[in-house]
Amino acid sequence: MSDGVTLLLSGGVGGAKLALGMARTMQSEKLVILANTGDDFDHLGLRICPDIDTLTYTLSGLSDPVRGWGREGETWNFMRALGALGGEDWFNLGDADLALHVLRTHLMRQGASLSDVTREVCERLGILARVLPMSDDPIATCVETEQGRMDFQTYFVREQCAPKVTGFVFEGQARARLNPAVQDLFTQGEVNAVVVAPSNPYVSIDPILGVPGFREILRGFEGPVIAVSPIVGGQAIKGPTAKMMAELGVPCDVTSIAERYRDFLDGILIDQLDADLLPRVGEMGLACRATQTVMTSVEDKEAVARVCQDFMQDLSGTPS
Amino acid sequence: MSDGVTLLLSGGVGGAKLALGMARTMQSEKLVILANTGDDFDHLGLRICPDIDTLTYTLSGLSDPVRGWGREGETWNFMRALGALGGEDWFNLGDADLALHVLRTHLMRQGASLSDVTREVCERLGILARVLPMSDDPIATCVETEQGRMDFQTYFVREQCAPKVTGFVFEGQARARLNPAVQDLFTQGEVNAVVVAPSNPYVSIDPILGVPGFREILRGFEGPVIAVSPIVGGQAIKGPTAKMMAELGVPCDVTSIAERYRDFLDGILIDQLDADLLPRVGEMGLACRATQTVMTSVEDKEAVARVCQDFMQDLSGTPS
Repeated sequence: MSDGVTLLLSGGVGGAKLALGMARTMQSEKLVILANTGDDFDHLGLRICPDIDTLTYTLSGLSDPVRGWGREGETWNFMRALGALGGEDWFNLGDADLALHVLRTHLMRQGASLSDVTREVCERLGILARVLPMSDDPIATCVETEQGRMDFQTYFVREQCAPKVTGFVFEGQARARLNPAVQDLFTQGEVNAVVVAPSNPYVSIDPILGVPGFREILRGFEGPVIAVSPIVGGQAIKGPTAKMMAELGVPCDVTSIAERYRDFLDGILIDQLDADLLPRVGEMGLACRATQTVMTSVEDKEAVARVCQDFMQDLSGTPS
Repeated sequence: MSDGVTLLLSGGVGGAKLALGMARTMQSEKLVILANTGDDFDHLGLRICPDIDTLTYTLSGLSDPVRGWGREGETWNFMRALGALGGEDWFNLGDADLALHVLRTHLMRQGASLSDVTREVCERLGILARVLPMSDDPIATCVETEQGRMDFQTYFVREQCAPKVTGFVFEGQARARLNPAVQDLFTQGEVNAVVVAPSNPYVSIDPILGVPGFREILRGFEGPVIAVSPIVGGQAIKGPTAKMMAELGVPCDVTSIAERYRDFLDGILIDQLDADLLPRVGEMGLACRATQTVMTSVEDKEAVARVCQDFMQDLSGTPS
């Protein structure tokens, strides 16, 4: 492949694992991560960007590998004091993590874009990969449930994903502009390949795909586009993906993932546990490869990244 | 004295010590503290109110008695993370302390006044005394120095009070309204007595006295008004009071303090170390009493508060 970049579409935890594997197995300046911002929200007057922060903490080695979010070695004195003052304490903000939220909110109130702030944070944390918000305009993922519409963090954190999902709404999406840096990369032919991370298709990847014009860019993109399935053996590794699929009446297997991305996808990487579905995915007109996709150790992450790179290499040159 | 309240004009540390002594030696619901807000400032997008917070932390037993500001048992992980992100870290904000700043900023952005927030914080922290900001309008104390004008926290914290002072400016003062709750207390005859705390006369008490109309209220007030001298033996117990007096060419003794408040004062409580100045203060037409005014222990604070109460009792009924 030429000197261009690889673009990873990513949500939080699962995407960050693959992002770390990719950053460690390629020239990391050539990795561009287009991050979901649909989970972003204002809480206590602070702008919280869960997926971007999971990405930057993971890429800089600051993340807590056990808890799966936030920073390792975090302390919680802010939360304790906030609770004592009667503040809303359903959303946990660690003491060190707060620095990022306070600084970002402050810079954005002074006129900086989310892209500006994210670039500065990445520089400070020594991250060589580029992390780009999908848009600098606010887009808020809302979950339609049998208990009514709720913003994503209310559904995810406060309600612990308990309400039965009936659909999703992305507030602000119609007016949002794609991050111009991503637009430029495609316009200037600098994108070699696109990877859809093993993130939740409804609340992590769909918000990105739904930014006006972006899905059309992917459909028209000549290079390889692959996805890594977030569904392994009929289960989601983490989070509410499988529960959402069940509630929406969608079969919880890799064919459903392939189907969702079929209009722009060239290939899908599935777990070895799902190898029996290789022929069915093939019948959908997609290349398919099976490997061990569960990323626990750093070695796992690097291994999945390498398989992705091989897969894209093999697809490269074949018309999409 | 009747069933009214005692009003304490207070800055931060010194005033908070006397406030605690008074709250512990009288019916604390009858103590109203009019707090300086001239030191308040916006930092990292957060509204910081140093004197009010020192008062509420001291009155609720949360303050750090050794450091003299902030909370006891505080942790500093926010500051460390902020520094690593390149944020401004010259003003220390503890992890637990941050809860108050974040909550206050959030509530004020939603339309609450500083009075509303302070009342809520006091309730939450179990404080029975009333802490009232001198005004709900922003007034910013600026220090004129030989290096130019600087806002108070820049002078006090960043520059460690090093620049030579030439004067003070209280930005916003002319447009600010006195806290209506204080106005009402005077209008309705509910104030029995007024105490000026041993706080810095220039940057803690003057901002309060300068709120339009307040000095006139004190001049017309019939009950006893006393001050506790912040100067002991020609020195300030804490902070830059003595340095400021020297730089402004004002003799650093209790007569200078008496002189500043003379137009509304009935009496001044000075330290036993300054007892030789009793006759000179008497010549100024002021009642004067000397005692041990340095407040280290809780017992010290209670003792000074009791002397104040006796002094006011004795002055009560005599025309001011």
